[in-house]
Amino acid sequence: MSKKPGALSIEETALFTDLYELTMAQSYLQQRMFASATFSLFVRQSRVNRPYLVAAGLEDVLHYLEEFSVSPDAIDYLHSTGIFADDFLDYLKDLRFTGKARAIPEGRIYFYDEPVLEITAPIIEAQIVETLAINQINLQSVIATKASRCFWAAQGRAVVDFSLRRTHGVDAGMKAARSSYMVGFQSTSNVLAGKTYGIPVSGTMAHAYVTSFEREIESFRAFAKSFPETSVFLLDTYDTIAGVTKAAVVANEMETQGHRLRGVRLDSGDLLELSRRVRQTLDEAGLNYVLILVSGGLDEFEVERLVQAGAPIDGFGVGTRMGVSGDAPWLDMAYKLVRYDGRPVLKLSTGKVSLADEKQVFRLRDSEQRLRGDVIGLADEPLPEPGAEALLEIFMEEGGLIRPLPSLDELRGRFQRDFVALDDRFKGLKKANKYPVRLSRNLRRLQKTLEREAEETEIA
Amino acid sequence: MSKKPGALSIEETALFTDLYELTMAQSYLQQRMFASATFSLFVRQSRVNRPYLVAAGLEDVLHYLEEFSVSPDAIDYLHSTGIFADDFLDYLKDLRFTGKARAIPEGRIYFYDEPVLEITAPIIEAQIVETLAINQINLQSVIATKASRCFWAAQGRAVVDFSLRRTHGVDAGMKAARSSYMVGFQSTSNVLAGKTYGIPVSGTMAHAYVTSFEREIESFRAFAKSFPETSVFLLDTYDTIAGVTKAAVVANEMETQGHRLRGVRLDSGDLLELSRRVRQTLDEAGLNYVLILVSGGLDEFEVERLVQAGAPIDGFGVGTRMGVSGDAPWLDMAYKLVRYDGRPVLKLSTGKVSLADEKQVFRLRDSEQRLRGDVIGLADEPLPEPGAEALLEIFMEEGGLIRPLPSLDELRGRFQRDFVALDDRFKGLKKANKYPVRLSRNLRRLQKTLEREAEETEIA
Repeated sequence: MSKKPGALSIEETALFTDLYELTMAQSYLQQRMFASATFSLFVRQSRVNRPYLVAAGLEDVLHYLEEFSVSPDAIDYLHSTGIFADDFLDYLKDLRFTGKARAIPEGRIYFYDEPVLEITAPIIEAQIVETLAINQINLQSVIATKASRCFWAAQGRAVVDFSLRRTHGVDAGMKAARSSYMVGFQSTSNVLAGKTYGIPVSGTMAHAYVTSFEREIESFRAFAKSFPETSVFLLDTYDTIAGVTKAAVVANEMETQGHRLRGVRLDSGDLLELSRRVRQTLDEAGLNYVLILVSGGLDEFEVERLVQAGAPIDGFGVGTRMGVSGDAPWLDMAYKLVRYDGRPVLKLSTGKVSLADEKQVFRLRDSEQRLRGDVIGLADEPLPEPGAEALLEIFMEEGGLIRPLPSLDELRGRFQRDFVALDDRFKGLKKANKYPVRLSRNLRRLQKTLEREAEETEIA
Repeated sequence: MSKKPGALSIEETALFTDLYELTMAQSYLQQRMFASATFSLFVRQSRVNRPYLVAAGLEDVLHYLEEFSVSPDAIDYLHSTGIFADDFLDYLKDLRFTGKARAIPEGRIYFYDEPVLEITAPIIEAQIVETLAINQINLQSVIATKASRCFWAAQGRAVVDFSLRRTHGVDAGMKAARSSYMVGFQSTSNVLAGKTYGIPVSGTMAHAYVTSFEREIESFRAFAKSFPETSVFLLDTYDTIAGVTKAAVVANEMETQGHRLRGVRLDSGDLLELSRRVRQTLDEAGLNYVLILVSGGLDEFEVERLVQAGAPIDGFGVGTRMGVSGDAPWLDMAYKLVRYDGRPVLKLSTGKVSLADEKQVFRLRDSEQRLRGDVIGLADEPLPEPGAEALLEIFMEEGGLIRPLPSLDELRGRFQRDFVALDDRFKGLKKANKYPVRLSRNLRRLQKTLEREAEETEIA
């Protein structure tokens, strides 16, 4: 795979990690701890307003795992810190990821406490990739989930990713475009994401364009000349209502030349009221085909408000608040050791107890194939009922991908199938029912036993 | 300059942009608009709780400007979209950034409405770099500002960047380390940032390390063996109080071998109460030299609470909430055309009026050199009073850097100088006085004239 913009190079991957992954690795080595370890990646329930989550980011993690190695340059740097022993630095030279990865595929809906990724490998390998795995899957799940809420709020109207300028840097800008497209956005303003991921690109014009002309109406005429079939005029540089009057004049001029104005964009003010007045002005000028797009600080709540009020809006440009997931910029995602050397393990930290052992998530459906509830169980236990679906699939064995990864368009279809099957009452933007997720009897029993044991041996 | 991890390659830079930058550029070209344009980058006042801002991100933008070009590959992609005319695609082949950049240097404190960067160039060049300039300076200002609040809350205790796993991707992870170090953090857990920026790296151990051993105390012994002088034991895997008892046992064992436990880390529960009990246990075991570090969902408010309560804490590991600026993950940063072809311009959009023309920010000080207030004026107006300091400096002319950029350590010193000179009443974490920023009489007068003109010609 060629490196994506903003991604790490092979030489950089191994050092994109918290220092403690490497100090722990040295200690594992010096203790001769080479047994197999399984780590679970999951999201802890917290107070964020996200009733469901969308899996995203796996593709990057799998490619990083495949290509993992520690470059001579990286080893030189580690040596220079004075922290590491020579035997460990030698050991790093040949270190590769040779393990297994099971995961809930990208584009699927998942819930709190469910392992979205489980990695099984000799403990050094499985430990050392923690930071990278969380970094990528957390970011992309955060954005895919937020974007899915905007998509849903629009109720079939077009939603476009306008977030690039305020996403957190290069990688986030690329992932915001990919993640939002995965969950139903129509296009992105991010040209590099268009090239990289094959996402349709779209855009309008900026205030700077308008103000670079001495008169607003001349800017519209000039843009129409360059883009006679695809122009979208920005109306609010001076005043939206004055702007639409001029836009209508130019649109009528375009008609006489056999062209059509595609749309207008509103970017400030009371978008409900303004969209109504703009629609009326356009319609009165015989321009009922001209689309109305809106932007400016939108999120799922504002989109829902406008849609429910019946605003005559054809499309929403959603930017910053989606691209940084403004009201919930992170999930409490953790990567915990759940099994080592055949022994299931857990931690008991206050408020952060983890679920032991290799696991599977089983999804139950009703007779109409709607999602009815999930069961978190042990990886090797039988289906909780006939027809239940096991969500974690094997993607990697012995450090290599065991099948081709799906295209972004396939992921888009997969998300839609899950999303349609999830009842509306579990999607409410402000308030939602809690989707039923329970632990299997086997997992519950194991968990109880281990908690009791740990309390007896470590605390009592 | 060699490419930093997570940065764009030269080939990618030109397409890391919103589509409309390129469609506007085509139209400028087709209108033969090659005159000089000045754009101002500034932060609009919004309801976020940030009484001051820290300038950061300029270095990246300057390097991107220096290297800006459109690769043949990028042009092929643009051609494939069917959006662009051949004359424009031809024109892009030789396009470089040939303009001027004036900016408030990184590490300095600035305020709302003040231009932190002004770019002057032929309008196509100045327009096309908008997205990238906002993307980098917004992200880094957001994080530097948030991190400075954490640094200040700690009142001299060590603060360490633990954010890598939940920053928004690769670039953000690197920039969080750099920005937080710039404003006084002691070190970072991000090893690649250590290598890239020369920031000290530090770390402790994870719960996985503890649970990979059959008994917690054995994990402490093993780690101490690998790191006899630099070990920091994590105490809360099962129970913090039980944990510190074991840590004390191992620390005393280490003493008999001539070593010293460096510290312990608390990561959950009531950190105030636990830190007191842990300190007591350690002291009673003669371990008063063992440091107490805490982590787990910290931000400036929690750090301030712990410090003000006199918690016996020596250092704070601040992660997610700093690295994503949890309570304010973006600033309302905009890049507006302020002058074109010798004509100052502005926009009047509801709630988003921009300040016209090329500008300068003047800083006034009192007799003790404390910051007294800023004046936003025109670039060519005289100092508002003797001794006033002009904050924007010229960094680039004719597309080339005109002087070497300062090192990160120099930026660190620069921030400290500004921060010390900013009175505490302007730094309050929950509530702060508004620092006085006014417009010069010349700018006010120009602004009024232009607003009146625009109202007359465009709205009335």
